[in-house]
Amino acid sequence: MRVLSGIQPSGSLHLGNYFGMMKKMIDYQEHQELFCFIANYHAMTSLSDGKALATGTLEAAANFLALGLDPEKSVFWVQSDVPEVQELTWILSNFTPMGLLERCHSYKDKIAKGIAANHGLFAYPVLMSADILLFQSETVPVGKDQKQHVEVTRDIAIKFNNHYGDTFTLPDPEIDDQVATVPGLDGQKMSKSYKNTIDLFLDDKPLRKQIMRIVTDPTPVEEPKDPDNCNVFQIYRLFLDKEQQAALRQRYLAGGLGYGEVKQELFETVRDFFAPYTERRKELLADKEALRKILADGAQKARWAASKTLRKVRKKTGLIY
Amino acid sequence: MRVLSGIQPSGSLHLGNYFGMMKKMIDYQEHQELFCFIANYHAMTSLSDGKALATGTLEAAANFLALGLDPEKSVFWVQSDVPEVQELTWILSNFTPMGLLERCHSYKDKIAKGIAANHGLFAYPVLMSADILLFQSETVPVGKDQKQHVEVTRDIAIKFNNHYGDTFTLPDPEIDDQVATVPGLDGQKMSKSYKNTIDLFLDDKPLRKQIMRIVTDPTPVEEPKDPDNCNVFQIYRLFLDKEQQAALRQRYLAGGLGYGEVKQELFETVRDFFAPYTERRKELLADKEALRKILADGAQKARWAASKTLRKVRKKTGLIY
Repeated sequence: MRVLSGIQPSGSLHLGNYFGMMKKMIDYQEHQELFCFIANYHAMTSLSDGKALATGTLEAAANFLALGLDPEKSVFWVQSDVPEVQELTWILSNFTPMGLLERCHSYKDKIAKGIAANHGLFAYPVLMSADILLFQSETVPVGKDQKQHVEVTRDIAIKFNNHYGDTFTLPDPEIDDQVATVPGLDGQKMSKSYKNTIDLFLDDKPLRKQIMRIVTDPTPVEEPKDPDNCNVFQIYRLFLDKEQQAALRQRYLAGGLGYGEVKQELFETVRDFFAPYTERRKELLADKEALRKILADGAQKARWAASKTLRKVRKKTGLIY
Repeated sequence: MRVLSGIQPSGSLHLGNYFGMMKKMIDYQEHQELFCFIANYHAMTSLSDGKALATGTLEAAANFLALGLDPEKSVFWVQSDVPEVQELTWILSNFTPMGLLERCHSYKDKIAKGIAANHGLFAYPVLMSADILLFQSETVPVGKDQKQHVEVTRDIAIKFNNHYGDTFTLPDPEIDDQVATVPGLDGQKMSKSYKNTIDLFLDDKPLRKQIMRIVTDPTPVEEPKDPDNCNVFQIYRLFLDKEQQAALRQRYLAGGLGYGEVKQELFETVRDFFAPYTERRKELLADKEALRKILADGAQKARWAASKTLRKVRKKTGLIY
């Protein structure tokens, strides 16, 4: 099954990104045909700092590769390295009723938050449709907020297929409700906007500092503690198998475990877990030419897949004369 | 001065198109740097018949070349052969406030006429801006109805230039009020929608039939006639120099000139005037591969000019990482 996923090149990553999305994405490559791209065109709707976008793109690539995305097992590229997607966007625009876009919550929400109403923001779902349809994607893992955009994609594809005959695969959204919501330092969902994150690829000192800031209750050291209501435990368990979780739970219930002690253990665990990834990331970013080469090779594969669709579409719509 | 002009590949041409627009365009190539393209992407907003678009594109190319557009003196290409314009469209979309597009009369007029409100129609002015800015066009000859779109282009270019530094030439619309309005068979402006056209490239019989249908008054043959109120004269004069016009005027005023006789003369004049063009058009359409080669060569030149702009834009906006 062909799975498509786009990720925005937007700054630093945290444990919530990793356990909520990236880990799952990297697992896909073992069993599915994964198409994964860095959505730098999309990022332009909210980022108009060219230097930041260029840096963010390379870093996002390094992040994904460091965390285990294998460019041999999947197709991994930067969106703008296959600019053909913009031609398809235009073609699909002529099969996109304005009402379909006007009803998109995501656009309305962003405008309500005070983001400038640019045409890029409005047209975003058409570009997303082109991303999905260009690669004949069958499954698109998305958050709940993006589900409507996959429905828009289906609507556009159906309109086109009805008019010009079967051309596009109809994609299905995959919304995984089982994905663990990773709690942040304060117990709310971990999110950059709540400033409660534990970030990936930090040096030891700032990483330890973040972990020490996890909010705990004032139960004295000697007393038994409730692991199910402890933010440290809830984060720690993501790194533990069942037996290890049971053992830690015992230590909580037995009393005599200080939060400082368990935070120190968590710090060491996080550090050790990500150490090889952090190392690999450094290596990748130290040789940017090699990194660009990996992305160029990925773009070539993506382009080949895209050209199969686009050739058909250009022929049917009369762009080949 | 660099002049940009796009023409829609929309079916047959008539005398109004020729004297109102095409002749002037072909004259540009002698004194200006003319960039002229067949706007097949734009045509998709109103035409969803792939075969008609493909045929129309080739015919439009043959028409222009037959009428004298010289691919050595100008840059002449089919819009979709330089698909880079779509990437620029996306980039510009992020510098295009929705209000700017919502205020476009052309979109509102089309919706009011009952044309389906598709996103392509709405986004049309952004694509037109990309057409203009990609080639650093200085002058864009347009009809009054398109003037607002050139203003939109300027607004977008100014926003981009302010943010990323001087990148785009600000284009000026050129609205030529002096272009003769060519009267149709019934004296109204010649227009396909009024069904009052004299078409180009017709065989003799249908051409003669159209000309014989020109509406005239019932003044008897012997009596003097008023050339200034005669549709035949008003059309005929387009083919005559000053002396010839004066001579014909004399014959009108003298009496004894039948409308049938002058229509027959007009028919012969139109036929003879366009005969070499009709011949050349037939030759061009008889060898489609050679025609495609001319267009491919033109696209290559256009692409080269486009790449100079696009390279700058991609660098500034961070698409080159």
